[in-house]
Amino acid sequence: MTGLLPWLEWAGVAVFALTGALVAARKQMDPFGFVLLGTVTGIGGGTLRDVLLGIRPVPWILDPAVVIICAAVSLAAFVSAHHFEREGRTRVILWADALGLALFTVTGTAKALEAGAPAISAVLLGVVTATFGGIIRDMLAGDVPLALRRDVYVTASLAGAVAFALANRFVSPDLDDVIGFAVV
Amino acid sequence: MTGLLPWLEWAGVAVFALTGALVAARKQMDPFGFVLLGTVTGIGGGTLRDVLLGIRPVPWILDPAVVIICAAVSLAAFVSAHHFEREGRTRVILWADALGLALFTVTGTAKALEAGAPAISAVLLGVVTATFGGIIRDMLAGDVPLALRRDVYVTASLAGAVAFALANRFVSPDLDDVIGFAVV
Amino acid sequence: MTGLLPWLEWAGVAVFALTGALVAARKQMDPFGFVLLGTVTGIGGGTLRDVLLGIRPVPWILDPAVVIICAAVSLAAFVSAHHFEREGRTRVILWADALGLALFTVTGTAKALEAGAPAISAVLLGVVTATFGGIIRDMLAGDVPLALRRDVYVTASLAGAVAFALANRFVSPDLDDVIGFAVV
Repeated sequence: MTGLLPWLEWAGVAVFALTGALVAARKQMDPFGFVLLGTVTGIGGGTLRDVLLGIRPVPWILDPAVVIICAAVSLAAFVSAHHFEREGRTRVILWADALGLALFTVTGTAKALEAGAPAISAVLLGVVTATFGGIIRDMLAGDVPLALRRDVYVTASLAGAVAFALANRFVSPDLDDVIGFAVV
Repeated sequence: MTGLLPWLEWAGVAVFALTGALVAARKQMDPFGFVLLGTVTGIGGGTLRDVLLGIRPVPWILDPAVVIICAAVSLAAFVSAHHFEREGRTRVILWADALGLALFTVTGTAKALEAGAPAISAVLLGVVTATFGGIIRDMLAGDVPLALRRDVYVTASLAGAVAFALANRFVSPDLDDVIGFAVV
Repeated sequence: MTGLLPWLEWAGVAVFALTGALVAARKQMDPFGFVLLGTVTGIGGGTLRDVLLGIRPVPWILDPAVVIICAAVSLAAFVSAHHFEREGRTRVILWADALGLALFTVTGTAKALEAGAPAISAVLLGVVTATFGGIIRDMLAGDVPLALRRDVYVTASLAGAVAFALANRFVSPDLDDVIGFAVV
């Protein structure tokens, strides 16, 4: 995980935290509902990936920077959410979800490859990272997960993860980030 | 885990993946909804067991055969699901769920004993393996879990796990598979 | 984890198991629904904390005392639940939830500090321990989690965890239990 990747990971965390906070807004939750749902959405997918890979403790325990990002984004969303009407929020959720999916597909696949997972499992873990934050968010909020209703998301994530894993193997490791992200 | 057990595990994975795919059919999901729900149902219970036991990484990362089984079963279900009417599907879900429960109770208890868990915890982990794939499936699909509505399932799983653990200790280790499965 | 803490942990487990069993009563579940929901609620938060910390296997596998506490409390609730009317049950759930939250905030933060987590992460894990048992309970039962609807809970838990972590660092380690609990 060098160069561009930590930044992509942080951007993905922030963007997913935003979707969690906006779902909290839709359900008219209080500030702590925002922070809880934003944080779980932001770090949920990556946490599941790391638990499955057996990385222990989960990295954010040793360096809680991503948790602080989630809390800050969620509180900013709480302060400003009332300025947007319902439809604007839904549109932002969909776009942010798609962007976070692209970011996490790349970083999730990269982290799994780095931890020594074979290519096919790395692709799977990329999809897990990208989809499960949002799945947990929707389950907590009492909705059927978006990932199960809009299969274009999972398809995009899968295609991106495959492209990234192939690029990582056959092309220069410096280019693979760009290729994986572009495909998604 | 020798002899019969890997086959029982694979059969359990395939059967649970089928129930996940059929729930996806009931909810009129798209192909990736089938694969996602089928895969999570097929490997969910065993994954939770392995995480709780501290086996790392989770075995399907090193050998993704079970994931491929799940994807294949789910896609086959997607192609053929439209040939069955609603009631036929519900009946197949109930039967497959019961069969998968029997298979996973035995393999889950066996794997926990093998990993050094004491008998009472191995029984618990057998029940966890057998019930949580379906519980996650139903939560993802927005239903109250079948395991909480039909207690005959959990009862059967618990009885089978106890029988298997006793058989493993007091009878020949070759016979215990048969005994545990028969009780369930 | 010495002195008072194991007792606080057991009390928290028992109290949360009670809330799980009472939700099972509200949903008119059968005995195994009571035990399953009571046990998952009682040990769910602590199990998630230990998985995130990388403690393996999860402690209750080696010493299933807490599981037995959960099963006993749940069965006692099943036998006696019919004597209470609906409103009395709801009141008990709210009180028991608040008490369990206070207990688990302290023990969760303490266990995370003991496992070497930095103070801010220990506070987070205290909140995770205190809230996720109830969150899983409500998700299994098909309700939107109480923790997302009543932010006073999470606020209280967070304040208690911070107080405990500060007390642990700056005051005598013997006094911190009392301070953390009193704040909550």
